[in-house]
Amino acid sequence: MRIGVLTAGGDCPGLNAVIRSVVHRAVVDRGDQVIGFEDGFKGLLEGRYRSLDINEVSGILARGGTILGSSRLERHRLAEACDNAEAFRHKLSLDALIPIGGEGTLTAASMLSAAGIPVVGVPKTIDNDISATDRTFGFDTAVGVATEAIDRLKTTAESHQRVMVVEVMGRHAGWIALEAGMAGGAHGICIPERPFQIDDLCKMVEDRFARGKKFAVICVAEGARPAEGSMPYERGEIDSYGHERFTGIGQRLANELEHRLGKEARAMILGHIQRGGTPTAYDRVLATRFGWHAVEAAHRGEFGMMTALRGTDIVMAPLANATAELKRVPQNRMDETEAVF
Amino acid sequence: MRIGVLTAGGDCPGLNAVIRSVVHRAVVDRGDQVIGFEDGFKGLLEGRYRSLDINEVSGILARGGTILGSSRLERHRLAEACDNAEAFRHKLSLDALIPIGGEGTLTAASMLSAAGIPVVGVPKTIDNDISATDRTFGFDTAVGVATEAIDRLKTTAESHQRVMVVEVMGRHAGWIALEAGMAGGAHGICIPERPFQIDDLCKMVEDRFARGKKFAVICVAEGARPAEGSMPYERGEIDSYGHERFTGIGQRLANELEHRLGKEARAMILGHIQRGGTPTAYDRVLATRFGWHAVEAAHRGEFGMMTALRGTDIVMAPLANATAELKRVPQNRMDETEAVF
Amino acid sequence: MRIGVLTAGGDCPGLNAVIRSVVHRAVVDRGDQVIGFEDGFKGLLEGRYRSLDINEVSGILARGGTILGSSRLERHRLAEACDNAEAFRHKLSLDALIPIGGEGTLTAASMLSAAGIPVVGVPKTIDNDISATDRTFGFDTAVGVATEAIDRLKTTAESHQRVMVVEVMGRHAGWIALEAGMAGGAHGICIPERPFQIDDLCKMVEDRFARGKKFAVICVAEGARPAEGSMPYERGEIDSYGHERFTGIGQRLANELEHRLGKEARAMILGHIQRGGTPTAYDRVLATRFGWHAVEAAHRGEFGMMTALRGTDIVMAPLANATAELKRVPQNRMDETEAVF
Amino acid sequence: MRIGVLTAGGDCPGLNAVIRSVVHRAVVDRGDQVIGFEDGFKGLLEGRYRSLDINEVSGILARGGTILGSSRLERHRLAEACDNAEAFRHKLSLDALIPIGGEGTLTAASMLSAAGIPVVGVPKTIDNDISATDRTFGFDTAVGVATEAIDRLKTTAESHQRVMVVEVMGRHAGWIALEAGMAGGAHGICIPERPFQIDDLCKMVEDRFARGKKFAVICVAEGARPAEGSMPYERGEIDSYGHERFTGIGQRLANELEHRLGKEARAMILGHIQRGGTPTAYDRVLATRFGWHAVEAAHRGEFGMMTALRGTDIVMAPLANATAELKRVPQNRMDETEAVF
Repeated sequence: MRIGVLTAGGDCPGLNAVIRSVVHRAVVDRGDQVIGFEDGFKGLLEGRYRSLDINEVSGILARGGTILGSSRLERHRLAEACDNAEAFRHKLSLDALIPIGGEGTLTAASMLSAAGIPVVGVPKTIDNDISATDRTFGFDTAVGVATEAIDRLKTTAESHQRVMVVEVMGRHAGWIALEAGMAGGAHGICIPERPFQIDDLCKMVEDRFARGKKFAVICVAEGARPAEGSMPYERGEIDSYGHERFTGIGQRLANELEHRLGKEARAMILGHIQRGGTPTAYDRVLATRFGWHAVEAAHRGEFGMMTALRGTDIVMAPLANATAELKRVPQNRMDETEAVF
Repeated sequence: MRIGVLTAGGDCPGLNAVIRSVVHRAVVDRGDQVIGFEDGFKGLLEGRYRSLDINEVSGILARGGTILGSSRLERHRLAEACDNAEAFRHKLSLDALIPIGGEGTLTAASMLSAAGIPVVGVPKTIDNDISATDRTFGFDTAVGVATEAIDRLKTTAESHQRVMVVEVMGRHAGWIALEAGMAGGAHGICIPERPFQIDDLCKMVEDRFARGKKFAVICVAEGARPAEGSMPYERGEIDSYGHERFTGIGQRLANELEHRLGKEARAMILGHIQRGGTPTAYDRVLATRFGWHAVEAAHRGEFGMMTALRGTDIVMAPLANATAELKRVPQNRMDETEAVF
Repeated sequence: MRIGVLTAGGDCPGLNAVIRSVVHRAVVDRGDQVIGFEDGFKGLLEGRYRSLDINEVSGILARGGTILGSSRLERHRLAEACDNAEAFRHKLSLDALIPIGGEGTLTAASMLSAAGIPVVGVPKTIDNDISATDRTFGFDTAVGVATEAIDRLKTTAESHQRVMVVEVMGRHAGWIALEAGMAGGAHGICIPERPFQIDDLCKMVEDRFARGKKFAVICVAEGARPAEGSMPYERGEIDSYGHERFTGIGQRLANELEHRLGKEARAMILGHIQRGGTPTAYDRVLATRFGWHAVEAAHRGEFGMMTALRGTDIVMAPLANATAELKRVPQNRMDETEAVF
Repeated sequence: MRIGVLTAGGDCPGLNAVIRSVVHRAVVDRGDQVIGFEDGFKGLLEGRYRSLDINEVSGILARGGTILGSSRLERHRLAEACDNAEAFRHKLSLDALIPIGGEGTLTAASMLSAAGIPVVGVPKTIDNDISATDRTFGFDTAVGVATEAIDRLKTTAESHQRVMVVEVMGRHAGWIALEAGMAGGAHGICIPERPFQIDDLCKMVEDRFARGKKFAVICVAEGARPAEGSMPYERGEIDSYGHERFTGIGQRLANELEHRLGKEARAMILGHIQRGGTPTAYDRVLATRFGWHAVEAAHRGEFGMMTALRGTDIVMAPLANATAELKRVPQNRMDETEAVF
């Protein structure tokens, strides 16, 4: 078989582990040929690729980033190519294409599949918000990084009698905030799924100080929002180049708490360190299994599908369903901790 | 409610997280009284306990070990107490007992349940071999420690052109060896579920050297065994006090490989560092959820059950079933990597 | 002897290790009495303290923060107390006082010493800018945290073809930026000791992109400043409460680079995670040695001095000299890397 | 200039950082040519080398091992080559040779220097036992790995009421055991510099149990020995291939303590994980500075010397002196902790 692989969208720990696993399974075990497209779909459209053998993937299992590079999806160029499906298929002349990416990538994969390209998707998002799979690789690493930050901030918050707000990733789903908040023992957790009442957060902090616990750590997802009317709307500010720049929710929340409580509050925006660097063992195993099963699905001819974790097994799920709905934190997970506001 | 909690059996990262969670849910949220028995069932039998409030569990979420202490189960003493079930129940006067422990502990919990004690078990084993739950807390931490060791050994094996054998825990099930081996990219994995052929291992190493990859790392579970006849039986040796001491499989395998291949081979026995210290974020979340659900089950009156992870949910499983059968690495998991010998 | 100990100023990994070491050496080895003042000099002035024995310091060696609490120095209150030196000495009735803190604390310690209080100082600053000692504890931990962040950001910068700016601590001295920048292999390092030319930074990034290395990581100390005229002055912005808020140099630099280069640039402000959490082995050893030597100095009657690292030895340095001059990054250290701009 | 570089002897975190630094300084900043000999002196003798440019050293700063490979020194072959000094010099035709290695390597470097080869040495040993330098790179990483192991073992020792013995590297000098023991808060530290009294160790453990601290952790250097007569001599045991195999001091000490105290004692032999993997920030900085200064010394024509850390500066020390005497733990360092037995 001639199998193409590409990585698209934002960085995510475990991408290299998938690539390595595809090459090990396909090239070494099954005698396939594997080519890697450079810079995501861009390389696919422009025919930029290189052959991947076992030496190319040596030593990359524990490395962050992607040896293939990535890029933002240019949907119209891809749509254009799909419009000339036969020519495109002919140009690619692949027996299978394994795109590794998030929601946008998987939607694009659906489009390619509809155009007759034999696609097996591998889902990737540190946000863990793809509904067809119990977990995605990268998420565990992101939670680990965020938890270590909370661990460190707790001792310094306590010594300084401060409120610390940690902003973690999660624009539409609060999984990282929920799990890092629970793992780090944050006293407050704010997620997009439930608009938070600033008054309740303030009361929690004041109760802690009254009990002699003169500090608090609040973990907030970047997509969390105050309940309507609970916090004054804050406009973006105009920087010296005339661009409007919005301050993130982490900083806004810290400002607001400091203002209301008269106590020092500081924000820490974790940002991209959640996306980079060595993946945890959990993510390496999951990524490796996804890669292995993607190759097997290709050999079974199961196209238009993506790998997914269900319980302890890797199964194949239809690409179409996969992105139909975002996986958000359900009510029963919020109930499991009093810290969600 | 008056709820008792105890930790029994070997150390496991996450025990303190369960205790903390039980106290948070029961005492803080529900107004229960929680007492902690000291040194496992020993404290239960001897009536040694202390009251646990929120201050007692402050700061323990990320700490290894157990603030309650543990001890080996003395089954006959427990059986004796159960024989006088009514007196025992009266003496304890508990509305619920939450024992946290491994197979032995859960069997004992069944016995207590049969004697009419209202028991809700929480499973604990770094080996991940309890069949009623997808995962147990402690396992992820153990895999993480073992993976970091493999990461470190790989570079030194390569520089020295050596074979390194890493022995990890797993007497009856090879989960740690399998997952750490996959996560670390071990070239060979030996698990109790499949007796290994020493000849195959030797061939793999020689093939690597022939390909110019002049090193190999092999991850072996302590309970792994060579296929019959594949490695000469080695008797235990007599130490200077006259005790027979068996060398573990890791050292034996390294000796054998060095002897057969004429290449330097070294063994590293990971041992107890897999059991101690700060739990990973994953294990803290799972342990916290188990504690929360154990309290809820007690309030619902669901006794004779234990908490279990199924997919992404925590469910209750009958204690009796839980220990009926060991969860061993199934064939399909072995198939996912060529490294299992 | 009756020895008082206190921690003052900002949080710093290793404070607990000093306290533990003082108690071990003084109480256990020498039979002294040790009392710990709460919340820094505040507790000293208000007579709030508790007796410290070996149980109080059990398990704190590896813990961040300070079990004694800290507070900002209120210099006037301290000066007032020193004006009535005899009464103050009588009230304290200490044979030795060991204040652990940074520049402000050591200056206060000098003042106390002048007032006849038998003081032995222990220097503390994550910034490493105290001239009397080769290194201070906390610095190694801060550099470690910053280095790990750079490691993680590098892979994600590479995958996204981005410029990443990491802002680390160091208001007056660039030690953390220099060492974390070198350890992480940052392509640019900006420190307060040398105003940077934004043009040179831009040229470096463009050269990298031209060479096919389409990413760059820049490590900037919070106190770094552009050379005059090299970057337009940016005013503080007015937030919704009417407070002027200055954006830090990290964010400003990222904005400027993005604007000039037309490439995506992102800032990551490390902030307080550099100050909190478990100290590295290096910092634990240095802190432990400082504590031991402080007690020994007290027993030798060497007051008005502070502990200091010189080469591999701990020596005593006059408190007065210690804070006379800030230790800044010297020219020869900048010369050792081309990355300092 | 044409500069050769090689790595010899055992693995050590930071080797790649030195190689990278040499290439950055020599090739990029100074326009030199750098060639790397493969497999240590073996490659030097056999003329196996490759040219090193900036791409060759990209991404290796944080990687363990050595991209050049290493090998054991074959002194006679080297001596032979030096006997024909002129031919050897001609064959190499180097303006400078930078061997990176431990005691053996530096002695060989002296020999080469005497034969007229322009040598600048870079010292390397995780044992930290080279007298001409305050510290060597690799040591901090080894201490960090050992400290993390002690941290983990402490919690499990406490939960199981056990004695844990951790054997760390250090055949002739006890630096790793001393610093990791202090950093981890080990209750006993045994080093080669002071033969230990088993009775004193036993008393310490019993005192702890009597005080209610029912566990102990002992950190022992592989080269530590009991005082004469304090522990019965234990012969090596004969394995099934007829080879005599000596059990290390860690296991022997655990056996002895278990036998004498009647308490469970377990040994953990850290071994090669101390040598491999990602170096700490400290070691990366030191290694990078050594590489930079080696190139500068070459350009100044300072041959027959090696780089050395003195206080905060890198200086050049004569190769001859460097290996004259082993740097062992001095009395004043032992005095700083009661834990050394």
